[in-house]
Amino acid sequence: VHLELERDYERHRQYDARYRVLMDSSTEPMIFVDLATGNIIDANRSAAEALEADRDSLIGKALTQEFESRSGDNILDEVNAISRSEVRRVIEMSSRRTQKHLFVATTFFRASGERLMLCHLQSSDKDARQQHTLA
Amino acid sequence: VHLELERDYERHRQYDARYRVLMDSSTEPMIFVDLATGNIIDANRSAAEALEADRDSLIGKALTQEFESRSGDNILDEVNAISRSEVRRVIEMSSRRTQKHLFVATTFFRASGERLMLCHLQSSDKDARQQHTLA
Repeated sequence: VHLELERDYERHRQYDARYRVLMDSSTEPMIFVDLATGNIIDANRSAAEALEADRDSLIGKALTQEFESRSGDNILDEVNAISRSEVRRVIEMSSRRTQKHLFVATTFFRASGERLMLCHLQSSDKDARQQHTLA
Repeated sequence: VHLELERDYERHRQYDARYRVLMDSSTEPMIFVDLATGNIIDANRSAAEALEADRDSLIGKALTQEFESRSGDNILDEVNAISRSEVRRVIEMSSRRTQKHLFVATTFFRASGERLMLCHLQSSDKDARQQHTLA
């Protein structure tokens, strides 16, 4: 039984490492948000670049500190409301830092009992940036 | 101590869930390969589409069954050789199923003692496909 537990533990640890590589190797800007606290719990380098922020300074920040809803509502209230009925939705929001308008592809899910949101940030000049990255 | 272990376990389980969401929500075709066995250990839906295969049929397959090296070498030997000196490299290979030429952005890393490779598959008609997806 002990060996089994250890194998299980190792398998989980491997997912941690794979998770980190997925985040760091992606050119897509992504952030994870804990919907109960409203805090950003992870962000990759691409997201930090897109938001013109240090990665470390983004993690732990409130979603409402970084983003504004386009409708004028509190952005956390808005995503919490959407998460009750949908799994995915593209939501328009603005970055408070850069004042840029973003299309955010959200995915709502549960992990170990927590309600989390994954955000793929896409600025409206995405095509231009991608050309630049690929060049 | 028991509670701490449990918390640790829960934290790891949360990464498993985040990992799954990262894979499934991405429009980038991605596969993970165990470099010791040479087998594909995970593939997302985008990768299955790009390779015109079922996701389930890809997992467990040998890398050499799915891909050919452009140089004529065994593709597993080629990536193993590169992994000894580099962390990242774009490698050209062909899909045996589709006969399509791919640019594969590889990332080599270790996870729980295993040598793994993450592959981002990019076909040469990527821009055309992306336009299609966004339209």
